[in-house]
Amino acid sequence: MVGGGNDAFIGGVHRIASRIDDRFQLVAGALSSTPEKSAASAEALGIPRSYGSFDEMAAAEAAREDGIEAVSIVTPNHVHAAASMAFLRQGIHVICDKPLTSTMEDAAKLEQAVTDSAALFMLTHNYTGYPMIRQAREMVAAGDLGDIRIVQAEYPQDWLTSPMESEGVKQAEWRTDPARSGAGGSVGDIGTHAHNLACFVTGLSVDSLAADLQSFGAGRSLDDNAHILLRFAGGARGMIWSSQVAPGNENGLKLRVYGEKGGLEWCQEDPNYLWFTPHGEPKRLLTRNGPGASAIGQAVSRIPAGHPEGYLEGFATLYNEAADAIRAVQGGATREEAMGVLPGVAAGMDGMRFINACVTSSDNNAAWTPL
Amino acid sequence: MVGGGNDAFIGGVHRIASRIDDRFQLVAGALSSTPEKSAASAEALGIPRSYGSFDEMAAAEAAREDGIEAVSIVTPNHVHAAASMAFLRQGIHVICDKPLTSTMEDAAKLEQAVTDSAALFMLTHNYTGYPMIRQAREMVAAGDLGDIRIVQAEYPQDWLTSPMESEGVKQAEWRTDPARSGAGGSVGDIGTHAHNLACFVTGLSVDSLAADLQSFGAGRSLDDNAHILLRFAGGARGMIWSSQVAPGNENGLKLRVYGEKGGLEWCQEDPNYLWFTPHGEPKRLLTRNGPGASAIGQAVSRIPAGHPEGYLEGFATLYNEAADAIRAVQGGATREEAMGVLPGVAAGMDGMRFINACVTSSDNNAAWTPL
Amino acid sequence: MVGGGNDAFIGGVHRIASRIDDRFQLVAGALSSTPEKSAASAEALGIPRSYGSFDEMAAAEAAREDGIEAVSIVTPNHVHAAASMAFLRQGIHVICDKPLTSTMEDAAKLEQAVTDSAALFMLTHNYTGYPMIRQAREMVAAGDLGDIRIVQAEYPQDWLTSPMESEGVKQAEWRTDPARSGAGGSVGDIGTHAHNLACFVTGLSVDSLAADLQSFGAGRSLDDNAHILLRFAGGARGMIWSSQVAPGNENGLKLRVYGEKGGLEWCQEDPNYLWFTPHGEPKRLLTRNGPGASAIGQAVSRIPAGHPEGYLEGFATLYNEAADAIRAVQGGATREEAMGVLPGVAAGMDGMRFINACVTSSDNNAAWTPL
Amino acid sequence: MVGGGNDAFIGGVHRIASRIDDRFQLVAGALSSTPEKSAASAEALGIPRSYGSFDEMAAAEAAREDGIEAVSIVTPNHVHAAASMAFLRQGIHVICDKPLTSTMEDAAKLEQAVTDSAALFMLTHNYTGYPMIRQAREMVAAGDLGDIRIVQAEYPQDWLTSPMESEGVKQAEWRTDPARSGAGGSVGDIGTHAHNLACFVTGLSVDSLAADLQSFGAGRSLDDNAHILLRFAGGARGMIWSSQVAPGNENGLKLRVYGEKGGLEWCQEDPNYLWFTPHGEPKRLLTRNGPGASAIGQAVSRIPAGHPEGYLEGFATLYNEAADAIRAVQGGATREEAMGVLPGVAAGMDGMRFINACVTSSDNNAAWTPL
Repeated sequence: MVGGGNDAFIGGVHRIASRIDDRFQLVAGALSSTPEKSAASAEALGIPRSYGSFDEMAAAEAAREDGIEAVSIVTPNHVHAAASMAFLRQGIHVICDKPLTSTMEDAAKLEQAVTDSAALFMLTHNYTGYPMIRQAREMVAAGDLGDIRIVQAEYPQDWLTSPMESEGVKQAEWRTDPARSGAGGSVGDIGTHAHNLACFVTGLSVDSLAADLQSFGAGRSLDDNAHILLRFAGGARGMIWSSQVAPGNENGLKLRVYGEKGGLEWCQEDPNYLWFTPHGEPKRLLTRNGPGASAIGQAVSRIPAGHPEGYLEGFATLYNEAADAIRAVQGGATREEAMGVLPGVAAGMDGMRFINACVTSSDNNAAWTPL
Repeated sequence: MVGGGNDAFIGGVHRIASRIDDRFQLVAGALSSTPEKSAASAEALGIPRSYGSFDEMAAAEAAREDGIEAVSIVTPNHVHAAASMAFLRQGIHVICDKPLTSTMEDAAKLEQAVTDSAALFMLTHNYTGYPMIRQAREMVAAGDLGDIRIVQAEYPQDWLTSPMESEGVKQAEWRTDPARSGAGGSVGDIGTHAHNLACFVTGLSVDSLAADLQSFGAGRSLDDNAHILLRFAGGARGMIWSSQVAPGNENGLKLRVYGEKGGLEWCQEDPNYLWFTPHGEPKRLLTRNGPGASAIGQAVSRIPAGHPEGYLEGFATLYNEAADAIRAVQGGATREEAMGVLPGVAAGMDGMRFINACVTSSDNNAAWTPL
Repeated sequence: MVGGGNDAFIGGVHRIASRIDDRFQLVAGALSSTPEKSAASAEALGIPRSYGSFDEMAAAEAAREDGIEAVSIVTPNHVHAAASMAFLRQGIHVICDKPLTSTMEDAAKLEQAVTDSAALFMLTHNYTGYPMIRQAREMVAAGDLGDIRIVQAEYPQDWLTSPMESEGVKQAEWRTDPARSGAGGSVGDIGTHAHNLACFVTGLSVDSLAADLQSFGAGRSLDDNAHILLRFAGGARGMIWSSQVAPGNENGLKLRVYGEKGGLEWCQEDPNYLWFTPHGEPKRLLTRNGPGASAIGQAVSRIPAGHPEGYLEGFATLYNEAADAIRAVQGGATREEAMGVLPGVAAGMDGMRFINACVTSSDNNAAWTPL
Repeated sequence: MVGGGNDAFIGGVHRIASRIDDRFQLVAGALSSTPEKSAASAEALGIPRSYGSFDEMAAAEAAREDGIEAVSIVTPNHVHAAASMAFLRQGIHVICDKPLTSTMEDAAKLEQAVTDSAALFMLTHNYTGYPMIRQAREMVAAGDLGDIRIVQAEYPQDWLTSPMESEGVKQAEWRTDPARSGAGGSVGDIGTHAHNLACFVTGLSVDSLAADLQSFGAGRSLDDNAHILLRFAGGARGMIWSSQVAPGNENGLKLRVYGEKGGLEWCQEDPNYLWFTPHGEPKRLLTRNGPGASAIGQAVSRIPAGHPEGYLEGFATLYNEAADAIRAVQGGATREEAMGVLPGVAAGMDGMRFINACVTSSDNNAAWTPL
């Protein structure tokens, strides 16, 4: 693991997620920005091998017979590219937190590095691991909704309503800092999740968008609220709203998809439910592993209906599938075959183009901007 | 009453709404497009005096000593202006269904007629009559949310998902016909409700908007789906989504308002609830007439908390207040004093400008368009 | 109308309910306990004829050619019997608030009076007027749930959590007074609604019950909370919980019915929704007048799906059907034919026996007690 | 681990739960009823040491220097006592699934064995591990509700609506078999959870109960539905409904507690929410780790508000606390100190007495029966 030292939120999530299905063991890390802090975090977490930097770690682990097979990159965004490339070069599989990088330039380099490496690169767009999201994707693909017309996605939060970044909250500091986060504030942190999920479920890609970004927090340079119009290839239209300043919203990621024949509605805070309305019939509440659950959704579900699975289990599914993918390439599968529905560098580039288009569009008074 | 013959939906609503608080008696009508049909409808409804046209009715009623004090105009949109003007000229108060008219030209004429008449003109933007909407408006005005930053409004329906207008559904025929509905499809019928409610609750006005309208229904010329970005005077930003093709949505009018200090969320299908989150505190569920209900909300509430009031009661409140307003001007109040929060021609003109700006913006590839 | 003077809650409800469908005109009343108060209330409400007592009113109205056809009895419970009998004797139809009376003795007399009279007696168990309740009843009768096994009914409120009766709240005073309310506190006021609704929807009757009643309010002699086990004829079992001391509950009447083949769930505070689960299939959300609405439910519905109807509309349906019933007997129908599903004296006697059995059972340490 | 072979549901749950917080390693097992099946399951799961029986395992592991510190017992109920005692005798800590045993006789023996052993005995009443349940318990103890008056608990399921036990479903076979489950059907399997949770949150104990049990499934000897009245020490009253035959209910464990000053409501299927109503104020929605979350709730929470934790995380908290408890006794703490809020043999005995009282009461026509 690279990043994820003592106080980091997402590092702990990755560690739990990697354990749930018992496919990974965490044996080495470069957890913090200095060798001393890294060693202290590693000891606290019981990780046997601690390194002073990701470069050192990549080289040393590649040289060991019992070296790591895969690494998790859980640093702030601006380190993703360099860290990932260090391991890819050594043929070590990479599981990287999203978004791909903080700049398009870094993203292009990383994309090339993925192409050049024999190792896999997986991006933890974790919401794609929720069973009902898998089922939604399957239902759209099967034509249960007919041709898709409308996609409504939103991800409101409220944690930056007050200026947390000037109150010593570390997470708020780097999230609002363009040098570490990249050009997107709310669009980079959470808008990308909404965009990714919309595309993952519908199988559509965004042709162009018109974005109106705002920074409501005093002195904030990155957007903390974004209103985005979408035009999808093939004629569907959509909207994305991302916000970090909407009081009463914790992680209100919501996806609604409507087609000629029906509609689907899903909310991340209640992830075990999927609402399905075949047009002209009563709305149905599909539950994870309940009646109406599809084989694809059940395959990524661990416990019976009515016993809720949550965020960590959805995240764990990506780790489980990463393990499958690694075994598959080891067994001779191509990288495409091995990856299956796992988000990789292509999804990451889509996300970068989305962030970039949002910022460009907004700088041009919300002009339509191709992705 | 003008319009509202046997099959019409909204005529029946107005009749019930006018009875609930026992302030009106329905004694005359020109209910349909022909004298025969009108007479038949009037007889069926037990209305004593039936007329062949609104012109005839306005003249005759004005001439009677016991003539009507007020008229309800519940025709399709393109008749609103002419019918309203006929009564205004005779000094008869007008209660008119929304939107104001079908064209800006008609709207301007009607606006002038209202100015020139001593009678009142009231527009039934009925959702403003819901008690929790009144309370929300009061809370925003009292500063409970601080400065408003974000307004999210939406009104999804699904009834035009399939081409009802070619299947003999009369309501669908005129709603999708520009000659009778005006330039707006979903934006005219329901988008205006979302726009009106957003402005009513926040006290803000829209400076400019960028709209992307679609007609998903085959052969449909008016929009049946609209995605709209809003910029409010003073810096708040917003979005409106209106749709008639979103399966699983009946009358999903929803308003969410977020400010520096808190957030409010309300949904028309569950109108007795208002969610209020003071930033940093738990979300609270305010109920009509329940603990936390304000005097202004209670004043337009008839029964105790937990016994739901609905659409007809909200509508009835406008009739009740119209009666108050009529008595007030009769008692010497100015028209402004008499109207209070009742929507009038100014709200109607706002709605017309909203529809017009949506269509203009969309025709210009969603360019920002002032209202 | 008898009772329903200025401050009374339920009188106002009856007046609005009787107006909504335009079948009744309120022309006479004995609204309060003294002729002076009655006259003042009648004048305030615009009721032409005011009487000093119900006896006087019954005699005078029967003697007029244009006398009332029907009377609403909306007094406290202990007056129901005498007032109803006064009108029944004169052949005037009676619409009486529930419960039937305050004592079994009075109930028996009233039952006899109904038998002896040619006039109709209708009891406003108003929750039976909700469209989704009508549909639920129809679905059970049609076998959609198979044989009924379990009935869970509850009606929690919180308004008597603190001792309102000693704080000058008139409604609380008579509700907690055995002389005016009868032997049942919460079981008489709201438990009867839960019992009535359970029987109305399932078509089953209660054979015996075991009840544990409590008076949590200091100095309160009537129950303010009740826990009841039910055994229905035919083998179904159930529970009723009624409470006036459950903070956070306004009028939480809820009915859940489970059979061999499916389940139904409904809540009065959200009355436009009915949850239906055919066993082994996803739960379906049936909406009033929406897809899946039955003809019987639609027949008592006024406006489209998604525009909520509420408590007053459900109540109005009983008035509308009372008008139908009166016209039917006038047209030669038998009283049974005329009444249809309207609750009458039989439902009222069931309710009295329910209250009585609850009190008797509880006095006997929750021993099983036949109804 | 004892039990939990390939097909078992609860074994897999325990394995994931024990991994989530990284405090346990699974190194030995007697997973099935025969040595061959056990070995096959162990190999499939990557467990190094497999034994043919729990007796063999207890002896062998106690003899190893690197033998297990604790064992999980996840067999059907009738094996709990013998298996637990085998390990307790060897001084190996026991984490046992609930209910305690299948008979009171076995329960008494096990209780004695716990007393006689230096090892800890922990019972996985897993719902006590949910953060909002911990917070609810804390709020009641702090007096936020005042004196408790009413406790409503229910646990409806629907999986035995049809006769699964005669359709080859293994789980249904032993759950409906008195020899393996004990005297309680639904009351033993899920009623005990409702009872345990009610007592855990309120700190109250049940004095006596009156139970009416039913077996709706044809040929079923154990109850599949139970209606229970409760009298708590100190005067509070309550109800429990448990059911396995209520179509539309998956794992609908719900707890509602009302006191003189306020009310709490919680549902297992949406476990991150806790509704709190201080009497006379609006209802508040408390969320896990959100505003209003208490330190005690946050201490057992892993991720931020709005990212749902679920059943496995609640279960994991018990494993985490079991590890703490083991380290605490190793460090010299008394067993009472070490256990903290963890359910142990006392909670298990309470559960056995609850099951026993339910069956006895029901056999006596729902007579009040002391626990």
